[in-house]
Amino acid sequence: MINIAVLGYGTIGSGVVEALDTNQEVIKDHAGQEINVKYVLDLRDFPGSPIESKLVHDYNVIVNDPEVDIVVEVMGGTHPAYEFVKEALEKGKSVCTSNKALVAEFGPELIALAREKSLNFLFEASVGGGIPIIRPILRSLNVDTIHHITGILNGTTNFILTKMYEEGSTYEETLKEAQALGYAEADPTADVDGFDAARKIAILSSLIYGKNVDFNEITTEGIRNITDVDMKYAKALGKKIKLLGITYNIDGKIYSEVAPHMIDKKHMLYMVDDVMNGIETHGNLLGDTMFYGAGAGKLPTASAVVSDIIDEVKHLHVNIPIKWDAEPAVLEDHSTHWSKFFVRVDSECEEMKTAFKIEQLLTLEDHPDEYAIVTEEMTFAEFDAGIKGREHIRNIIQVK
Amino acid sequence: MINIAVLGYGTIGSGVVEALDTNQEVIKDHAGQEINVKYVLDLRDFPGSPIESKLVHDYNVIVNDPEVDIVVEVMGGTHPAYEFVKEALEKGKSVCTSNKALVAEFGPELIALAREKSLNFLFEASVGGGIPIIRPILRSLNVDTIHHITGILNGTTNFILTKMYEEGSTYEETLKEAQALGYAEADPTADVDGFDAARKIAILSSLIYGKNVDFNEITTEGIRNITDVDMKYAKALGKKIKLLGITYNIDGKIYSEVAPHMIDKKHMLYMVDDVMNGIETHGNLLGDTMFYGAGAGKLPTASAVVSDIIDEVKHLHVNIPIKWDAEPAVLEDHSTHWSKFFVRVDSECEEMKTAFKIEQLLTLEDHPDEYAIVTEEMTFAEFDAGIKGREHIRNIIQVK
Repeated sequence: MINIAVLGYGTIGSGVVEALDTNQEVIKDHAGQEINVKYVLDLRDFPGSPIESKLVHDYNVIVNDPEVDIVVEVMGGTHPAYEFVKEALEKGKSVCTSNKALVAEFGPELIALAREKSLNFLFEASVGGGIPIIRPILRSLNVDTIHHITGILNGTTNFILTKMYEEGSTYEETLKEAQALGYAEADPTADVDGFDAARKIAILSSLIYGKNVDFNEITTEGIRNITDVDMKYAKALGKKIKLLGITYNIDGKIYSEVAPHMIDKKHMLYMVDDVMNGIETHGNLLGDTMFYGAGAGKLPTASAVVSDIIDEVKHLHVNIPIKWDAEPAVLEDHSTHWSKFFVRVDSECEEMKTAFKIEQLLTLEDHPDEYAIVTEEMTFAEFDAGIKGREHIRNIIQVK
Repeated sequence: MINIAVLGYGTIGSGVVEALDTNQEVIKDHAGQEINVKYVLDLRDFPGSPIESKLVHDYNVIVNDPEVDIVVEVMGGTHPAYEFVKEALEKGKSVCTSNKALVAEFGPELIALAREKSLNFLFEASVGGGIPIIRPILRSLNVDTIHHITGILNGTTNFILTKMYEEGSTYEETLKEAQALGYAEADPTADVDGFDAARKIAILSSLIYGKNVDFNEITTEGIRNITDVDMKYAKALGKKIKLLGITYNIDGKIYSEVAPHMIDKKHMLYMVDDVMNGIETHGNLLGDTMFYGAGAGKLPTASAVVSDIIDEVKHLHVNIPIKWDAEPAVLEDHSTHWSKFFVRVDSECEEMKTAFKIEQLLTLEDHPDEYAIVTEEMTFAEFDAGIKGREHIRNIIQVK
């Protein structure tokens, strides 16, 4: 029997406890032994709950108990999560986490510490919720040089964009609906401004490049400026608008960004709607693959956390190698990226029709006061030069 | 340095040699040491090829060489592949294979033998080509009880069905095109009659149930009877026709089949076109996931084979547990399965309009001599009773 401690009894923590209980037999079969939740750490009390007798408020009880082999950090946030995880590793306990903020910020340090101590620091649930993505990248796609990842990595924004597309509602209305359903938080900044997706693409990028991609350096644009009118144009173009986290490596030059894109029917990610996530990878041997599933939610995320626990039970004092060095990966300047651009313009401004080489010119019957163009592919520098000083632009969205 | 031997220098064998060479550094990094192809076994000679000096015609040279730690079986067929693999395991060598015929027929025996000898018998490439699916099922989805798998598992038939859908061509024309492009073999039986897909769904089913699903017991229908007229109806219904391998477990009752289905836009598999494969799983915690990628092809398949080689290098004399017992899984009788049915009928036969509870009744302008119905969901037994003795039926296809 292996004793574990769960830090945090919120949505994911309670999901982990529930998953271990519900699928006890299956999990024991794969882990080779029983997994026992010895402690749950939370500041709150949960009288009458099944973990009442396991609840502790003081982390020292856990970290100083030699019977605890694995610490499951599902508190979220970077402090005190970072201090708790570090102390656990220093005291000979493996750690797994669903905490993308922790992993994006302290990944290389905690991975190195786990390696040094012949322990493990695993984080499958930190990207893509329940979707197996980190383990496949490390252990299946490890034959390939992965040049490119594009992902719908945030369920909240995907829910909002899907509803806006399907129902013609405004961003503000839809955000309220998402908040009422519990899909968006009262302060939705981390999701709607793209910071959550930026952390996730930073984690995936770091794993494929082996060097540290700093999420702070990723050019990040959220979905606050996407309107119901943009959605009408997207439909007219046969496209949907999705918030994409992107990284690509061309001859050693690394590009990364988070931004809304109009994507075409022919892309697999076009189908990824509601709170679901999807992650496309491109390898030099394997070509394109796509991983799809629940990007968030109590039990899907718990399932990914428990898959890490099983791995750690099977590798108790054997480090599973993860190459993610502290050495910074240098990102190319955003102005050197390239894209096609969708631009909405006041009708009175005729000149945008000739400012660029354009692929398409559109008007919507019920919006006679404006038109839109889709440009050919060009760099951001070229595009920015072309729109410099121009007024009358209503919105700009990248096009795939 | 680890020495391996590659059995068979056909498409996949030469792909494995090429992958090991092209991505040498990446692979060494993950495997922790260099992987050296010491021998290639083939009956043919390949004068001037890079493996000329490694070529042997006699398997005894390989299996009796104590320096060879891993044997890569990519010959195809069951004999002598089975005898070669068994002897390799008996003589202390781990084996990996891309050979679904071998795995579907002898999986439990070879897995047990590898376990007994503290070796490994791995077969990631046997299902879904380059798509990571077997390792994710064994090591990521291992927390879940997987109730359901549906897959587009055969690239050849998916190519044919995609072309028929897009170009309005007949089955016979499109098969010839696929043969000319090298996507279908001169004798296309294994692909077009669904036997290849049956072996693959048998492998996946055995892995999720832990017991042996015999591919011979899976009700299997291919795509030979799908016509260009069926495709017109599919389009009119907003659906595509796909050959699906399906297994599901409802309260311990196991159903499995391979058959063409009309599937709706809302399914992720609707998007899986050309030679690509897609595999959907449903777990009790995780919900739906989908894995998409190249289901065949030299380098994608080789990438999956090499991911197994890396795993075996890292677990040289440590068995990676795979639960797939020889105990047979009992499949429920096909007549107890259920589906909606698309039925095309001669116009003169009015009675089919009332023989079933139907969801839809369709006619095509350019085919006035017939009509089609889509029934409500019912068991095969109920459906078969309803059509018993009726003539004038032109085709029947399941509907999802």
